[in-house]
Amino acid sequence: MEGILALSGGVGGAKLASGLAQIVPPSELLIVANTGDDFRHLGVPVSPDLDSVMYALAGLSDDIRGWGRSGETWHCMETLTSLGAPDWFQLGDRDLATHIVRNQALLSGRSLTEATAELCQRLGVRHQLVPMSDQSVATTVHTDRGAMAFQHYFVREQCNPLLQSVSFEGAEDATYNSRIDDFLIDYGAALVVICPSNPMLSIDPILALPKMRTLLENRPVMAVSPIVGGNAIKGPAAKIMGELGLPVSAVGIAEYYQGLVDVMVIDRVDEPLASNIEALGMKVCVTDTLMTTSEKKRQLAQYMLEFVHYFDH
Amino acid sequence: MEGILALSGGVGGAKLASGLAQIVPPSELLIVANTGDDFRHLGVPVSPDLDSVMYALAGLSDDIRGWGRSGETWHCMETLTSLGAPDWFQLGDRDLATHIVRNQALLSGRSLTEATAELCQRLGVRHQLVPMSDQSVATTVHTDRGAMAFQHYFVREQCNPLLQSVSFEGAEDATYNSRIDDFLIDYGAALVVICPSNPMLSIDPILALPKMRTLLENRPVMAVSPIVGGNAIKGPAAKIMGELGLPVSAVGIAEYYQGLVDVMVIDRVDEPLASNIEALGMKVCVTDTLMTTSEKKRQLAQYMLEFVHYFDH
Repeated sequence: MEGILALSGGVGGAKLASGLAQIVPPSELLIVANTGDDFRHLGVPVSPDLDSVMYALAGLSDDIRGWGRSGETWHCMETLTSLGAPDWFQLGDRDLATHIVRNQALLSGRSLTEATAELCQRLGVRHQLVPMSDQSVATTVHTDRGAMAFQHYFVREQCNPLLQSVSFEGAEDATYNSRIDDFLIDYGAALVVICPSNPMLSIDPILALPKMRTLLENRPVMAVSPIVGGNAIKGPAAKIMGELGLPVSAVGIAEYYQGLVDVMVIDRVDEPLASNIEALGMKVCVTDTLMTTSEKKRQLAQYMLEFVHYFDH
Repeated sequence: MEGILALSGGVGGAKLASGLAQIVPPSELLIVANTGDDFRHLGVPVSPDLDSVMYALAGLSDDIRGWGRSGETWHCMETLTSLGAPDWFQLGDRDLATHIVRNQALLSGRSLTEATAELCQRLGVRHQLVPMSDQSVATTVHTDRGAMAFQHYFVREQCNPLLQSVSFEGAEDATYNSRIDDFLIDYGAALVVICPSNPMLSIDPILALPKMRTLLENRPVMAVSPIVGGNAIKGPAAKIMGELGLPVSAVGIAEYYQGLVDVMVIDRVDEPLASNIEALGMKVCVTDTLMTTSEKKRQLAQYMLEFVHYFDH
């Protein structure tokens, strides 16, 4: 099997990442997580997407709540609230331990990549998960209510402001994770998987890193549409696409990724749209993309890999 | 009633402080807590004695465990341990919130005095509690196994090393809390109460601050012996006194405080020692000093105040 480079945002991406991890050996899968959402909160560095993927790979995700750890408690957060601390971003007691350990690692001079590897090792995660960069890139959302940091828009304001554009502060001066080059040296013909994450908010920060698009240009790139039946599985993708004047559909996703993505993976309910996507110069893979169980995550990953081999080899 | 300035260490001091708070109006009591034990741990500033008093005044102490908050949980700590973080100093989920809020306050430029006042206000504490200083003073214990920071000696090493001496790093350059002067301007004839805390480890850091002893010299000072019947109520006071060659008794405490303390408060079981203490030039107040209930805390405080009035007025 050839190496697979997966680009992931948070929850949706984490699901496909854990599906891939079920069938791809650890050495042959490198998952690159968006860190444009990262921010310091209550004195600790929070990496929401990185942690969503890490918890998913460790089998610790809370699938009902849709974020954070299962079996979580909120005693520290409740007390913080009673002490007047901001409560718009919830940190669970067990999740908080992740941020404290990461903080200590960063304070001692280790990189976010190293801190992530240590956390993954402790959580029994065998697959390789890295932040997109070890430098800070801050996704900033420009809205009708002004510019705001990602988490302020996403969590505090519940994505209510009208989105006008998105910028990635620091991206120009950041470098993509060097582990990606190392991985590609070992797996020259790597397939790139863009997980079903928000293209504008979760994948674009990764693509905004210098030389990242160039790196992907000559490789097979397969993207899973986060829009199914005209709605986002989770999150504000549909709302944002509407605000940006894009078709709120798998076709809109394909248009957004045109020139980068070779194969669009869409859900069966969107099969009628396949010809519109093919008209954009992409291949289309139609399958079940709703990863509601561990088995369905594995099946989607399996189907994608088989589809690519069928066409390319 | 005249103003009362109480000097306190952790648990024993916190009990008497809460007894005093039951009978003295908030404006007439200033509790000064030792901060020589303070240290940064897992990225947050921990003030063990200050918090013991604060939780006691708020009615939140865990009287069975003897430290920390009642109804505490340990989910963050358990997870930290599983992630490889040091586990020798336990931070409860609710207690952790205190340290996070204090960290944020200090990071935003507020003093430890201001941070403490904010926490107290949120916890409904109406009496005045201040750290002995807003500068860092680090109690360092010199032992047969070398010098070590207080919490390393006290918690990590369980007070097992033989104590040779104690120093207070930074004390010479620190200033005692200016709120003490403000309080004494309002209550010139203040009674000073030295709570039943460890003289060498909990009270000496306060007394080591420049001009602190001078400030107390011309005021009535009343100390409660933390040694009852030849044993410490809690903690290593008896062990340390033996290692330093002091009599392990209320007389040893009186000798240690000679020249500073005017009235020694001792337990009924130590009544036979009264004449030995009087021979040191002190008055002796004999009463029940085991503050096992809220009522007994109040009774000890009440008795002390009545005793002083009887002699001095």
